[in-house]
Amino acid sequence: MFRTATCGELRIADANKEVTLAGWVQTVRKFGSITFVDLRDRYGITQLLFGEELNKVLDENPLGREFVLQAKGKVNERSNKNPNIATGDIELLVNEFKILNKSAVPPFKIEDDTDGGDDLRMKYRFLDLRRNAVKKNLELRYAVSRSTRNYLHEQNFMDIETPFLIKSTPEGARDFVVPSRMNPGQFYALPQSPQTFKQLLMVSGYDRYYQIVKCFRDEDLRADRQPEFTQIDCEMCFVEQEDILNMFEGLVKRIFKDVKGIDYTETVERMTWEEAMWQYGNDKPDIRFGMKLCNLKFPSHTFTAKHAALAGTPLGDGGLIAGEFAVFNDAETVIAIAVPGCSEYTRKQTDELTEWVKRPQIGMKGLVFIKCNADGSFKSSVDKFYNEDQLKAIAEATNAKAGDLILILAGTEEKTRKATSDLRMEMGKRLGLRKDDDFKLLWVLDFPLFEYAEEDNRWVARHHPFTSPKPSDIDTMINNNPKIENAAEYLKHPYANIKANAYDMVLNGNEIGGGSIRIFQRELQEKMFEALGMDEEEQQHKFGFLLGAFEYGAPPHGGLAFGFDRLCAILGGSESIRDFIAFPKNNSGRDVMIDAPSAIDAKQFDELQIKLDLKQ
Amino acid sequence: MFRTATCGELRIADANKEVTLAGWVQTVRKFGSITFVDLRDRYGITQLLFGEELNKVLDENPLGREFVLQAKGKVNERSNKNPNIATGDIELLVNEFKILNKSAVPPFKIEDDTDGGDDLRMKYRFLDLRRNAVKKNLELRYAVSRSTRNYLHEQNFMDIETPFLIKSTPEGARDFVVPSRMNPGQFYALPQSPQTFKQLLMVSGYDRYYQIVKCFRDEDLRADRQPEFTQIDCEMCFVEQEDILNMFEGLVKRIFKDVKGIDYTETVERMTWEEAMWQYGNDKPDIRFGMKLCNLKFPSHTFTAKHAALAGTPLGDGGLIAGEFAVFNDAETVIAIAVPGCSEYTRKQTDELTEWVKRPQIGMKGLVFIKCNADGSFKSSVDKFYNEDQLKAIAEATNAKAGDLILILAGTEEKTRKATSDLRMEMGKRLGLRKDDDFKLLWVLDFPLFEYAEEDNRWVARHHPFTSPKPSDIDTMINNNPKIENAAEYLKHPYANIKANAYDMVLNGNEIGGGSIRIFQRELQEKMFEALGMDEEEQQHKFGFLLGAFEYGAPPHGGLAFGFDRLCAILGGSESIRDFIAFPKNNSGRDVMIDAPSAIDAKQFDELQIKLDLKQ
Repeated sequence: MFRTATCGELRIADANKEVTLAGWVQTVRKFGSITFVDLRDRYGITQLLFGEELNKVLDENPLGREFVLQAKGKVNERSNKNPNIATGDIELLVNEFKILNKSAVPPFKIEDDTDGGDDLRMKYRFLDLRRNAVKKNLELRYAVSRSTRNYLHEQNFMDIETPFLIKSTPEGARDFVVPSRMNPGQFYALPQSPQTFKQLLMVSGYDRYYQIVKCFRDEDLRADRQPEFTQIDCEMCFVEQEDILNMFEGLVKRIFKDVKGIDYTETVERMTWEEAMWQYGNDKPDIRFGMKLCNLKFPSHTFTAKHAALAGTPLGDGGLIAGEFAVFNDAETVIAIAVPGCSEYTRKQTDELTEWVKRPQIGMKGLVFIKCNADGSFKSSVDKFYNEDQLKAIAEATNAKAGDLILILAGTEEKTRKATSDLRMEMGKRLGLRKDDDFKLLWVLDFPLFEYAEEDNRWVARHHPFTSPKPSDIDTMINNNPKIENAAEYLKHPYANIKANAYDMVLNGNEIGGGSIRIFQRELQEKMFEALGMDEEEQQHKFGFLLGAFEYGAPPHGGLAFGFDRLCAILGGSESIRDFIAFPKNNSGRDVMIDAPSAIDAKQFDELQIKLDLKQ
Repeated sequence: MFRTATCGELRIADANKEVTLAGWVQTVRKFGSITFVDLRDRYGITQLLFGEELNKVLDENPLGREFVLQAKGKVNERSNKNPNIATGDIELLVNEFKILNKSAVPPFKIEDDTDGGDDLRMKYRFLDLRRNAVKKNLELRYAVSRSTRNYLHEQNFMDIETPFLIKSTPEGARDFVVPSRMNPGQFYALPQSPQTFKQLLMVSGYDRYYQIVKCFRDEDLRADRQPEFTQIDCEMCFVEQEDILNMFEGLVKRIFKDVKGIDYTETVERMTWEEAMWQYGNDKPDIRFGMKLCNLKFPSHTFTAKHAALAGTPLGDGGLIAGEFAVFNDAETVIAIAVPGCSEYTRKQTDELTEWVKRPQIGMKGLVFIKCNADGSFKSSVDKFYNEDQLKAIAEATNAKAGDLILILAGTEEKTRKATSDLRMEMGKRLGLRKDDDFKLLWVLDFPLFEYAEEDNRWVARHHPFTSPKPSDIDTMINNNPKIENAAEYLKHPYANIKANAYDMVLNGNEIGGGSIRIFQRELQEKMFEALGMDEEEQQHKFGFLLGAFEYGAPPHGGLAFGFDRLCAILGGSESIRDFIAFPKNNSGRDVMIDAPSAIDAKQFDELQIKLDLKQ
């Protein structure tokens, strides 16, 4: 050992002990004939004191930032204690030292507030990883994984490894593929998830399976996506949806406790997918604050009494906003939110909000506001089209109180709903209603089983093709699948109303996990594949093994997977998963540190029996 | 939940409780108007009793093997107890049941002694996994992983994930490569190990890293190799070899304790690579038994006084076997072992052993034996060439006692050494000296740093290019590398004698782990790459990031990796790692269950901008 103690462990009780430390030079401070060095390792920082004699040696062998140093000496009580660090009561009076390795001047500061830009830090990720801010993230990640493993172990889950070199069955996302040298012309695929394997393990009777496992998707990357990412992947036998919700609420509560010291004793809220869409405008609502969406006008083809109730308005199509305002009259949808306590916004502020919704990312044409004044009167940007009673009716529908500011967007349905949802999130942020250390869990339930891909004129599985419909919808699924003659009318098809036994766990407006009860009957699975446009041959080629397995006593089963990177990021109060991955890739899927991907040798092409076919 | 208890937990204390079980039908036994069903799940087997009334229902809905069944009823004390199973005191008196899923007749028996051949079981692996024998293996695997994680956690190791999509730097084994769609013409490689990443983590100061991680090698497969395999991968900062040996002896002892209930309190033996090679004929000796090799004759070019001592004979070149026997006189090497207690072997037995060494796998021309009779006389197959004194001298050199049988092989050096080692292992097995439940650990130390690849006329790294030479050899490494003019004389080169700071952990004759102290100085690393024939450009292209990292304060570090699959297999008393992998591949790298690898779509080729280039 190059040390007898770490840089984080010495205390006043260790005074006068002879110890050896090893670590990195954080700072060097010379005062006349003595020198102080802060020595850093993973565990902390300890101050070294080089007296007069050694100082001369130091003059000949000057230390620099990030030099690797071994120092022997006696632990000394400091006269000038530093209460900000754990070792602040002591220092090491060095009597012998050795430079174990030198360091060039780092290209950026190894400090929380670094001067290194993103690209530079990624190129020198091994230096970036030294920063405390990054180290804390990886420590949190490890703590989450440890907590997860402990909980699942106690609940009788078994960690079982599934293969990485599997079969390409693209359905949804693109596969990464791997040419097989031993089977020329054939390819493995890297798993997008261990979905079918964990289901086979249930068929095999393993009862409770989990894995913290890398998955791969060859998709065009956004800032918060990585081509390789990690899942907490789980599956259980002989369970219904309720059992799974309870089990995995338990997991997340345990992680809160172990990792954040938070006792999350509240009941986890639940909401149907329809409630989420109508009341929050998206399927992963942040319920740390209210400000629910109120549909003042519906496109008539989606309007039902149930929807009216969900949407929070007692009136039908166009009722609340009947008037002379052409923008509202022409819009498919009009949606409002009541922003608490903002009725005093100045013209400048409302103008700025209007600009905000007109940005290309939001893309709306304008913003209507109604100020609910403290005295009960209203002041609106559409005063000339609506009288006081009409404004009051809108205020009531949106649950606005005196002092609130009602914001209203109008346009086509999907776009307006999304824009209002974005506006709600923005206002929540501006008003400080979305605090990093405030955690609110939510289950979103009863997702539609299918979505219609109009371009391909076929159904696609919203979750994945292994998700079971609600028991009450199984009959429809098997017996009521008329051909769709007119793609535009897909909503009239019986499949459009089939709900899935699927659930997402949402934390602070982020989907952190999702899963479903699975199909375990061959006939139903075949119906599902058929609905997705797979003929028998394709079914057999891609998923013959699973259909076969269902013939040999497949038990009822279900499960879910958490996005491990995202879960860690949210727990760490960050929006970027990259900060919680030791060696992430950039938005072009490149690791700029090792410079991958890269060209390969002619010999490799030759052995794999493939060649490039580059487009011009 | 489909159950209120598992099939493994009910005991006599549960009598009269109302419970619901769910599981698979193991057996159905009908006795007149009642039926017994053994219901199985992961946790055990419980007997169900269907009385007269339900029996009629059963007649209409007959149960078959592997049907999935839910049964409600009352726990009943059995009149006919079965002491062989944990639930043998009770049975479930069924009052309601439901067939949750039917099963076709399985293609083989779901029992320990199955009638399914290897191919059939692999095709239906999801059924094979139901067998208790296979389940026990995966449970052991999970227990080993759990024990490993707990120990390493307590020792301050952090689990940090390293990337799977990295850069191809073939050196030794072949990489699996992954075409990058976003970077056309470029490829990722799947890691053969996280070696360079774990070293970067040490440079980053993470101090103690571990991971239980999949690795990939595109090699032609043998029975005990898989294209994807799992490592327990570890690395530590500020350590010397001794620290690593202690840390990981501790790990394996902890696994013995947790998984096998064995207190391994003995000191773990250590042996140099040279000792292992001379005394056991290979670098992973099984030291559960003695029967050491004795070199009766050396090829003169390898003979030194040190070797004579290691080889267990006081005499030099040809001394002990000087005589008229042309086979020995002409042979480069003659090696003997003394097999205890076998002097009474019959002619038939010695003939059979002679045939054994003549098999193509061993490939020797013959076998010479000397029987050390109980009365102190000798009887040998070469009596006419050697007198009693000479035979006695050989017996003394091999440490043979009265009653032992000396077996002697002669031929070229490497082949003879390997053959004698194989013969020693075979005799150990036949004599019952290699018991599955007897575990003996061994460290093999001081491996040569280099091996010479005569075909390429260059050095290759015996362990890998990141392994440090012994401190005393660093100077030779940097300053004494004359050009080799004559490849056949490579042994005279100074590099041939450089020893590595490398170590293998051997368990019962299997290498279960290996590692080294790493190079952490740029200059030395460059010298190493140079020795391996990499010019500066290639060094920079392949490992520029690592050389760069070494300039910014790289600490002394080292580590090791355990072959997780093999470790589990040995602990489970098996020679095949496949038995300990949930979904293994066959010797052609195929997963016959899912039928992978397989063809991919034209669209995939198009997007990846590659095409096939199949040889005729």
